[in-house]
Amino acid sequence: MADLTHFDDEGRAHMVDVSDKATTARVAVAVGWVKMSPETLEIIVEGRAKKGDVIGVARLAGIMGAKRTSDLIPLCHPLPVTKVAVDIVPDADLPGLRIEATVKTTDQTGVEMEALTAVSTAALTVYDMAKAVDRGMEIGGMHLRLKDGGKSGRYEAP
Amino acid sequence: MADLTHFDDEGRAHMVDVSDKATTARVAVAVGWVKMSPETLEIIVEGRAKKGDVIGVARLAGIMGAKRTSDLIPLCHPLPVTKVAVDIVPDADLPGLRIEATVKTTDQTGVEMEALTAVSTAALTVYDMAKAVDRGMEIGGMHLRLKDGGKSGRYEAP
Amino acid sequence: MADLTHFDDEGRAHMVDVSDKATTARVAVAVGWVKMSPETLEIIVEGRAKKGDVIGVARLAGIMGAKRTSDLIPLCHPLPVTKVAVDIVPDADLPGLRIEATVKTTDQTGVEMEALTAVSTAALTVYDMAKAVDRGMEIGGMHLRLKDGGKSGRYEAP
Amino acid sequence: MADLTHFDDEGRAHMVDVSDKATTARVAVAVGWVKMSPETLEIIVEGRAKKGDVIGVARLAGIMGAKRTSDLIPLCHPLPVTKVAVDIVPDADLPGLRIEATVKTTDQTGVEMEALTAVSTAALTVYDMAKAVDRGMEIGGMHLRLKDGGKSGRYEAP
Amino acid sequence: MADLTHFDDEGRAHMVDVSDKATTARVAVAVGWVKMSPETLEIIVEGRAKKGDVIGVARLAGIMGAKRTSDLIPLCHPLPVTKVAVDIVPDADLPGLRIEATVKTTDQTGVEMEALTAVSTAALTVYDMAKAVDRGMEIGGMHLRLKDGGKSGRYEAP
Amino acid sequence: MADLTHFDDEGRAHMVDVSDKATTARVAVAVGWVKMSPETLEIIVEGRAKKGDVIGVARLAGIMGAKRTSDLIPLCHPLPVTKVAVDIVPDADLPGLRIEATVKTTDQTGVEMEALTAVSTAALTVYDMAKAVDRGMEIGGMHLRLKDGGKSGRYEAP
Repeated sequence: MADLTHFDDEGRAHMVDVSDKATTARVAVAVGWVKMSPETLEIIVEGRAKKGDVIGVARLAGIMGAKRTSDLIPLCHPLPVTKVAVDIVPDADLPGLRIEATVKTTDQTGVEMEALTAVSTAALTVYDMAKAVDRGMEIGGMHLRLKDGGKSGRYEAP
Repeated sequence: MADLTHFDDEGRAHMVDVSDKATTARVAVAVGWVKMSPETLEIIVEGRAKKGDVIGVARLAGIMGAKRTSDLIPLCHPLPVTKVAVDIVPDADLPGLRIEATVKTTDQTGVEMEALTAVSTAALTVYDMAKAVDRGMEIGGMHLRLKDGGKSGRYEAP
Repeated sequence: MADLTHFDDEGRAHMVDVSDKATTARVAVAVGWVKMSPETLEIIVEGRAKKGDVIGVARLAGIMGAKRTSDLIPLCHPLPVTKVAVDIVPDADLPGLRIEATVKTTDQTGVEMEALTAVSTAALTVYDMAKAVDRGMEIGGMHLRLKDGGKSGRYEAP
Repeated sequence: MADLTHFDDEGRAHMVDVSDKATTARVAVAVGWVKMSPETLEIIVEGRAKKGDVIGVARLAGIMGAKRTSDLIPLCHPLPVTKVAVDIVPDADLPGLRIEATVKTTDQTGVEMEALTAVSTAALTVYDMAKAVDRGMEIGGMHLRLKDGGKSGRYEAP
Repeated sequence: MADLTHFDDEGRAHMVDVSDKATTARVAVAVGWVKMSPETLEIIVEGRAKKGDVIGVARLAGIMGAKRTSDLIPLCHPLPVTKVAVDIVPDADLPGLRIEATVKTTDQTGVEMEALTAVSTAALTVYDMAKAVDRGMEIGGMHLRLKDGGKSGRYEAP
Repeated sequence: MADLTHFDDEGRAHMVDVSDKATTARVAVAVGWVKMSPETLEIIVEGRAKKGDVIGVARLAGIMGAKRTSDLIPLCHPLPVTKVAVDIVPDADLPGLRIEATVKTTDQTGVEMEALTAVSTAALTVYDMAKAVDRGMEIGGMHLRLKDGGKSGRYEAP
C-alpha cells in the first residue's frame, strides 16, 4: 500500500525533505464554488455594477490567502509565489459563484495547496459578506484542476 | 432588496460597526467533507491505528485555523474564541472524511466564520497530506449547521 | 519634563499596564495622503470607473492593516476593533488621493494606532499599485484628526 | 495611457506574474520623517542618552515591518530580504526624526515596498511611543530615494 | 489518574471551553536564562554601554513574542494582554543573562503561556545575536515563578 | 574583542547583509528538554497509547514554529525551509521529554534559529498541555547540537 510521505517510518508527522528536488517552474489551478439562493446571487451581481463589490473583495482575499498557505497548513513548505490570479464568475445555473485560482512559482515544491487555499479563502469571504442575507449557502466542488512542473509532471483533472 | 451590510451607502466595503451590539454567549457549528478514493480512505484509517495520524494533524490545523480567521477574511471582526473543537470521522459511503467544527465566544459578533474556517483549514490539511496518493480528492459540503446567540438568535440548517 | 510612558523608571521599554483602566467606548480618526502626478491620478480615477479599482484595493488593505496593528507596533496593546472604515477620495489640487480611517473599540486603551496603521497601509498599497507608472509619489500628512473615550477624553487636531 | 500592471485586461486585481523575470541583486532606499514639537524631540533625544530609547525601538520595528510587507500589501510578492537597515536621526530644524531604510534582496522583484514599509512602521512606532506627550505629531515625506537592479534599472529621486 | 484537559473523552485534542469561567484579573511571572562563556557576556555587557544593545533588542522581542503566543501554541486561547514587561540582567556567576517576564490580563484564562513565550523569545533572540561569537550557549531554567487570579488561585514556585 | 555582527559600527541593530553569501545546502540540529514529575510523564506516555497525544501535538507545533522564526526573532533573515523534523522521546531518568529538531534549507544563511525555535515551541506546547496537572515543569538544555553548510562550515557541540 502506498505511503503517506508526510509521515516517517515510525508514523511521525514531518515536513518532507525537498532539499534535493530540482528548482523548476511550477503551476497549479484549483477551482470551487459557493452555491446560494438566486436572490443572493442577484444582490451580488447587482452590487457589482452599482455598489458593493463582493467579487472584488473575495478575489483580493483569495490572493492574500495564497500567501498565508504555509502558515495554515502544518506540513506545507513555505515558498515565494511568483503569480496569483483568482477569477470569480457568477453562474445562474448553480446558482452562485464559480472560483478559479492560478498560482505559479519557481521552487522545489508545487503550489497545489496555495491554489486551493486561494479558492477556499475567496469562498469563505463570499460567505462572510453574504451571510446576513443567506445563511444557507454551501461551499463545494473544491479540487485541483491542473498542476505542472516538478518530477511528477503534469496532472489534469478528468 | 436586502442590503449587504459589509458595504456602506456608497457601496464601499467596511468592517461593520458592532460597538453597540450586546456582548452575549455565541456558538456556531459548521461542517464539510473531503471525498477521496476508497483506497486513500483506507490508507488514512489504517494509518490512524498504526502510523501516521492524518486525522490528528488535520484536527489541530482546524483549531489553529479558527484562530486566524480575522487575518484571512478581510471584513471579519477579530474576537477571542473561548472554545474550538474539530471532529473528523471516516465515512465509507462518501467515501472520505466528514469534518465538524464547534466554536464558542462571548462577544459582540458571532463565530460562524471561525467555524467555517476551522472546517476549511482541516479539509485543506487532509488534502495536503493525502495528495501524493490521490490528486482527485474533492472538498465540499461546507455549510453552517447551527448558530445561536446574538440579536438574530438561533439558526439551524434545514 | 514629561515622561514617555512606554519606558519604566530605569528606561526599559515595556507594554504599559492598562489592567486598571476603565473599559469604555473609544474612537479615533486619522488622515493622510498620497501625492502623485496628475497623470497618475487620472489613471487611477479612470480605472475606478472602467477597470482596475486601485481605491477599492487600498481601502481593503487599510481595513486589514488595522487588524495587524499590535503585530507591527512593538509596545501596542492587542485589542479587538469593533469598526474600521477607510475613506479614500481623489483630490485634483493635491494632486493625489486623500485617505481617512475611522476605528472604534470598547476596551481599556485607545485606537489611535489602529487608525494611523489603516491610513499607512492604504497609502502604501496605493503606492504599490501605481509605482510602475510613477516612482515619484510621496506619502504624507499622516496625523490624528480626532480621538475620544478613555480618561484623557476628546482630542481634535487644530 | 499607461496601464496599471496590477490589473488584468478586464480590470481584475492580480499578483503580477514575475516567473520569467531574472533573479538579480536588488536594492531600495526609502525615507520619511516624523514631525513633532521641539519639546517632544528633546524628550526623545535626552531619553536616548539616559533612559528610554525611542529610536532603538523604532529602528527594530522598522526592520521587523520590512519582513511583514507581503502580509500587508495585498498584491505584493513575498520575497526573502537579505539585508534591512533603518537609520533614524534627530533633526532640530524639522523638528523631529528623519528615517531612512535600506533593503536588499536577490530575487525576481524589487524591494521598494519593503523599504517603504520599514520607514512607515518605524514612524508609526515613534508616534506610538511619543503620543502620550504630543498628539499633534505628523508623519510625512515618505518616498523612494533610490532603487537599483532588475529590468527597469536604476532610479534616483530628483 | 488526573486528566489532561486539552483532550476530550475520546482523546481528541481540543481548545478547552472557558466560556463559563469568570473574567478576572490575572498575572503570571516566568523566568529563564541564557548561559554563555564569560567572554560573550563581557561583549554583551560592554556593548550595552557603548554600542550594540543586545539586551534592549531581546527585551523587545520578548514583549512582541508574548503577543504571538496563541499563534504558536496550538491549543492556547487568544487573549488581549494588558501588560507585558521583560527584565534581563547579566549574572557573572551563571555566566550569562537572566530573563524574567511579567504578563497581565483581565480574561477568562491565565497568562502563564504568554509569560513563558516572552522568556523563550527573548532567550532565542539573545542566542541569535551572540551566536556568531559563541555557538555553545545554552537556554535553560525556564519555569513559572508565579501565577495569580482565576479559580485555581495563586501559585508560587517552591 | 569580537564584534556582534547584528550591530553596525555605530552600535545600531540591523539585519546583516547576506546578499553576497553563497547559496548552499545547510542543516542544523537543536535539542532541549521538558523536565516534569514522574506522574506527569506517566500521564503523557499512557495518553500516547490510549488517548490524548501530547507528543504528537507538540511535534506539530514545533514544525509550525520553525516556519515562524523570522517573525519572532527581530534580526533573523526570512528563508524557506526545505525540511523540518521534530523528534520527542520520553526519558524516565530526566524525568520528562527530550526534544530534537532538524531543519534544512538551501539558502544564504543558516537554520540554527529555526531549529532552536522548533525545539522551544514544542517544549512550550508540552508545558501548555500538561500545566493543569504539573505547574512545576522546567524547560532547559536548549542548545545547538550540530550545524553544517555555509562559510563557517561544520560545528558539533562538544
